[in-house]
Amino acid sequence: MKNLLDIYSRKKRDISAIEKELEETVSSDYSLLRETSIHLLKAGGKRIRPVFVLLSGEFGNYQLQTMKNVAVPLELIHMASLVHDDVIDDANTRRGQLTVRSKWDNRIAMFTGDYIFAKALGVITQIPKPEVHQIMSKAIVEMSIGEMEQIRFFFNSEQTIRDYLLRIRRKTALLIAISCQLGAMASGAPDWVSTKLYNFGYNVGMAFQIRDDILDLIGTEKQIGKPPGSDVRQGNITLPVLLTMKNPGLKPMILTELDRIHKLDGQTDVSRFLDLIRGSEGIKEADRLSQVYIDKAIASLDKLPDIRAKKDLIEVAHFIGNRSY
Amino acid sequence: MKNLLDIYSRKKRDISAIEKELEETVSSDYSLLRETSIHLLKAGGKRIRPVFVLLSGEFGNYQLQTMKNVAVPLELIHMASLVHDDVIDDANTRRGQLTVRSKWDNRIAMFTGDYIFAKALGVITQIPKPEVHQIMSKAIVEMSIGEMEQIRFFFNSEQTIRDYLLRIRRKTALLIAISCQLGAMASGAPDWVSTKLYNFGYNVGMAFQIRDDILDLIGTEKQIGKPPGSDVRQGNITLPVLLTMKNPGLKPMILTELDRIHKLDGQTDVSRFLDLIRGSEGIKEADRLSQVYIDKAIASLDKLPDIRAKKDLIEVAHFIGNRSY
Repeated sequence: MKNLLDIYSRKKRDISAIEKELEETVSSDYSLLRETSIHLLKAGGKRIRPVFVLLSGEFGNYQLQTMKNVAVPLELIHMASLVHDDVIDDANTRRGQLTVRSKWDNRIAMFTGDYIFAKALGVITQIPKPEVHQIMSKAIVEMSIGEMEQIRFFFNSEQTIRDYLLRIRRKTALLIAISCQLGAMASGAPDWVSTKLYNFGYNVGMAFQIRDDILDLIGTEKQIGKPPGSDVRQGNITLPVLLTMKNPGLKPMILTELDRIHKLDGQTDVSRFLDLIRGSEGIKEADRLSQVYIDKAIASLDKLPDIRAKKDLIEVAHFIGNRSY
Repeated sequence: MKNLLDIYSRKKRDISAIEKELEETVSSDYSLLRETSIHLLKAGGKRIRPVFVLLSGEFGNYQLQTMKNVAVPLELIHMASLVHDDVIDDANTRRGQLTVRSKWDNRIAMFTGDYIFAKALGVITQIPKPEVHQIMSKAIVEMSIGEMEQIRFFFNSEQTIRDYLLRIRRKTALLIAISCQLGAMASGAPDWVSTKLYNFGYNVGMAFQIRDDILDLIGTEKQIGKPPGSDVRQGNITLPVLLTMKNPGLKPMILTELDRIHKLDGQTDVSRFLDLIRGSEGIKEADRLSQVYIDKAIASLDKLPDIRAKKDLIEVAHFIGNRSY
């Protein structure tokens, strides 16, 4: 399987252009906000959303300026949601870097998120298609509902797998779905193409989040840029855990552990919990579901023209389904 | 002087329509966000921004639907910023009601703000004028810079009056300025008219915030819906305080008090501080500056046609300059 960078290499120049535009967009004349925003940008990220915009744009009349106007706000919306996420998660590191809330404080993180979000809107206004604005604003509403849902379900061991899937749909999959859709729409691809790409992005997004949640349980701190078990410490019960709890032999032990971690507000060693999950079938089953989403994603591309971008999208999908970082 | 409700009475029906639209806009199918948002809405507020949109719209081709599309997002943006403001201020009450952060918690308040903000965008997309979007997004960026500035200047006794004025410009005046401007623009009033109305709103907004800051020092809890001295407890040094510190006889005592309040993180009786300010010329001088802004605001309307809305704007301006709630 190819490495993400190999797939990106063809689009390297355009990704750099987006990176530059991201930096320019958040560079205000007010130094603290510039500092916090640039800190966030420099912490990196896979830039999956911009890449999907670029690849999807190749199904229409690809114009870098248009692609930038779509990719930059989508990545900024994602960044703004991350920095607000870190506030509720009390997260100290992300991608191996200090979070804004830990390097500065929660209040500064909150306003950095607001600022980045506002800057994203400024870029969106440059896109002359009202339907693009509508799609983005609906996705942002859904994302904020998803964030709230996450809080509501913290340490809720009664939640169903459907609750989990609905939540990651809002939290992650929708924004990736519209990255594909809007990349195509903005470059004038026909509606059926942008719909197929939406489906591709949606399914890849679901797989992406499931993989993320698996990695939080089995990855090393070096791989995932934060201590493993961060999810459970904040009360976020993810798919592998829900699947493991279907095993009546394991459920009581997991409930006991969840209860203990909850009572200690996550400030405790979670290695017993991690061992329980790692030793179960939950990880493998979650992985299988993630593969189902990847397969669905790739199937969505079936009828699309066989251009280079289609091959690349398939490669990125495979990478996402198997990634270890 | 007329009461605000007397001035509003002519527009009562349209204000009710906006109120209804505000409620419908934030009513999602997800119950917690509906609850927190409706709680915020029901806590009331003067709805100054919607009223300015409506009155300014009368300088063009007034259409209620257009007015709603402008007024609703502006009021929602204001509400979103309030709920985030309450998080950094650790505020427990606003307008005599529990704040979202105190009735629920900070995380829920943060996402309620994000959600309301996202909903505002959804309404904005219905306005077919890109320049309206650009003006709104720039104002939101400035507002978030203003919020951050506020944190930076907490308990900073070295700040100048210019720092203060710049901050309230961003925090308050700009949104009121564009409420007037966009009300006129959206209803097709000529550019020179919307510019005059922008100037009116800007100056009224400055006076509004100065008056707010005075009331925090001299008002009763019943009048202002929160304990007096809330500003200084959170470290917000406002115009009357800065003016009082120009008095070399009072400055050392104020600095001592500020230092004490700061060290105790605002968790202390601030009546000595309030007495110092109340007994000084700072309040009167701040009031005078507020009146200068009101006069400037009214002067901005000079060349506008003598329609009923112009009289009403002048009445609202006078009310704002003298209000005690």
